[in-house]
Amino acid sequence: MQTLQVDLGERSYPILIGEQLIDRGELLACHVRGKQVAIVTNDTVAPLYLERLLQSLSEFRITPIVLPDGEAHKNWQTLQLIFDALLAARHDRNTTIIALGGGVIGDMAGFAAASYQRGVDFIQVPTTLLSQVDSSVGGKTGINHPLGKNMIGAFYQPQAVLIDTATLATLPARELSAGLAEVIKYGLICDEPFLGWLEDNIDRLRALDQAALTEAIHRSCEAKAKVVGADERESGIRATLNLGHTFGHAIETHQGYGVWLHGEAVSAGTVMALEMSSQLGWISTADRGRAVRLLSRAGLPVVPPADMRAEDFLKHMAVDKKVLNGQLRLVLLQRLGEAVVTSDFPQEVLEATLNVNYDALTQ
Amino acid sequence: MQTLQVDLGERSYPILIGEQLIDRGELLACHVRGKQVAIVTNDTVAPLYLERLLQSLSEFRITPIVLPDGEAHKNWQTLQLIFDALLAARHDRNTTIIALGGGVIGDMAGFAAASYQRGVDFIQVPTTLLSQVDSSVGGKTGINHPLGKNMIGAFYQPQAVLIDTATLATLPARELSAGLAEVIKYGLICDEPFLGWLEDNIDRLRALDQAALTEAIHRSCEAKAKVVGADERESGIRATLNLGHTFGHAIETHQGYGVWLHGEAVSAGTVMALEMSSQLGWISTADRGRAVRLLSRAGLPVVPPADMRAEDFLKHMAVDKKVLNGQLRLVLLQRLGEAVVTSDFPQEVLEATLNVNYDALTQ
Repeated sequence: MQTLQVDLGERSYPILIGEQLIDRGELLACHVRGKQVAIVTNDTVAPLYLERLLQSLSEFRITPIVLPDGEAHKNWQTLQLIFDALLAARHDRNTTIIALGGGVIGDMAGFAAASYQRGVDFIQVPTTLLSQVDSSVGGKTGINHPLGKNMIGAFYQPQAVLIDTATLATLPARELSAGLAEVIKYGLICDEPFLGWLEDNIDRLRALDQAALTEAIHRSCEAKAKVVGADERESGIRATLNLGHTFGHAIETHQGYGVWLHGEAVSAGTVMALEMSSQLGWISTADRGRAVRLLSRAGLPVVPPADMRAEDFLKHMAVDKKVLNGQLRLVLLQRLGEAVVTSDFPQEVLEATLNVNYDALTQ
Repeated sequence: MQTLQVDLGERSYPILIGEQLIDRGELLACHVRGKQVAIVTNDTVAPLYLERLLQSLSEFRITPIVLPDGEAHKNWQTLQLIFDALLAARHDRNTTIIALGGGVIGDMAGFAAASYQRGVDFIQVPTTLLSQVDSSVGGKTGINHPLGKNMIGAFYQPQAVLIDTATLATLPARELSAGLAEVIKYGLICDEPFLGWLEDNIDRLRALDQAALTEAIHRSCEAKAKVVGADERESGIRATLNLGHTFGHAIETHQGYGVWLHGEAVSAGTVMALEMSSQLGWISTADRGRAVRLLSRAGLPVVPPADMRAEDFLKHMAVDKKVLNGQLRLVLLQRLGEAVVTSDFPQEVLEATLNVNYDALTQ
């Protein structure tokens, strides 16, 4: 087992990474201060891992809360089901909520923990690659609104994150690829050597080689923990983690939540951010091509949806959280391994980026 | 104008108290960092004060959000109306939400500010006595759930609180009395000399004497700011502010939200807490009688609803937020001017308290 620390003063917490950690209740129990625990999961993950987690924590009084699976359910109606169950089982302020599942479960259970009785303890047990390397680390929680993704939520840190790498064996290949989009992102924004490692190991990762997965998860969490430790509430450098996300969120919103996976939308969005960085003369077309090839080898889409026009992107991007005082800010690359958040670009370059024929570009 | 400071480190903020402050936009403008402002109010307060506040802040781009009035609307459906309006008008992370109204508006606008895009700035402009002396100070925000009051929310501090005492001229007498319940509470829990002042001035307060109101509000906010500064997240002494509230919440829940005003339920609940303190031998029946007379002179109910039985109270109190690890904690008085939070009482005394004939007691 490997352990990382996210440094946030009194809100610091450990990330534990290893195989079969779900069966090691003692790793979780030391982070539970009361007798009550609620496990929030979904109807896909519950049959796979809920029973084992219940066994591990048999000393506690546990309320399992099984939600419908999918981004389409990341809304207030589903969040209410958590509150209903907590109140029906009389959970008090000393309760601990454990999120067992992917990013949607983690975001919703985390926001429920932030809001239930104005805040109770929270532990993340992410079971998808995407949530293991991204959403479970850093304290962003929330739900979607019909007018925008992740618009309602809280910054709320967990007591601990427990990553059981063995859970990836049950993850569909498409979701594994979606997780790799965020892994590759860390290389692009802050760790150029990691990009080289990924080029050498991308096939092993897709074949679920456990050693390669452990290395990739550890390195990704390390990058994220460092950035979050420096800027918890995203006033500066943390926003670089959103490479490809502003374009990507526009894709997700336009297609309707859940049609494209988040990582897929981020992948196509990253290609657009790379193209814009290239048009600004910040990275070479060769570097852009290198990154696009890696995303493509990871099994990810590198072209935005055929039916999306420039005006569709502009409309959805106008309500993005990265808009400040009416000005759109984008994460772009100054070179491979170095990202910048900026609103200092000509509008024509953005529009040219939105009008590129990506099919031709990524041939 | 008088100014108080709530001391919470980097989350410290001022409370401004005075007549006609709503017209002094400069007092608010210095706490607004962007260009966007949303004013959340209700359909009772809007016709009285919204136009004046809009005039005061004419330099900003303002979205007025007018909600239906009443505790019955302090729920998720109404909260969504705030998010809908913010997103429709494209408010970004730099927006400031101003609550103009009573406690329900302050609690909902505050929780909206805590949750919108994971947190935006927030200013309180309370227009009822209850919200001026209690709910606008201290950062508790939230909404009700069908199974419990204030069960969903956040601790979220405002940038500033602006109390315009002149707004009390339009407050119904019944609501003024409800506010006095919390004013009297401060005397009971931590300021015995203030109790004497209130006995001398209760008629002036009910007659809306501005000087008396200003003194009472200032002294109440001072008491609350001191307690909140010492214990922001209610791990200890802050819970003493809930004198009468555990019994009172049971009354509100049982009657249905909005039938009894919050302050009315707190008043009857306070009488029950006084009776229990007296049964425990902590205060004399003379002290209990003195406090009951003051509440009664303030125009407040001092007897719980005739149809509520002991088992009704016990059922509702079991889900109260003051329950920790299954143990009910109550705020009781050790003497007038000194409260304690305790679960160290015989269950028989609680049950005896619930079975008292309060009509006879308060004759």
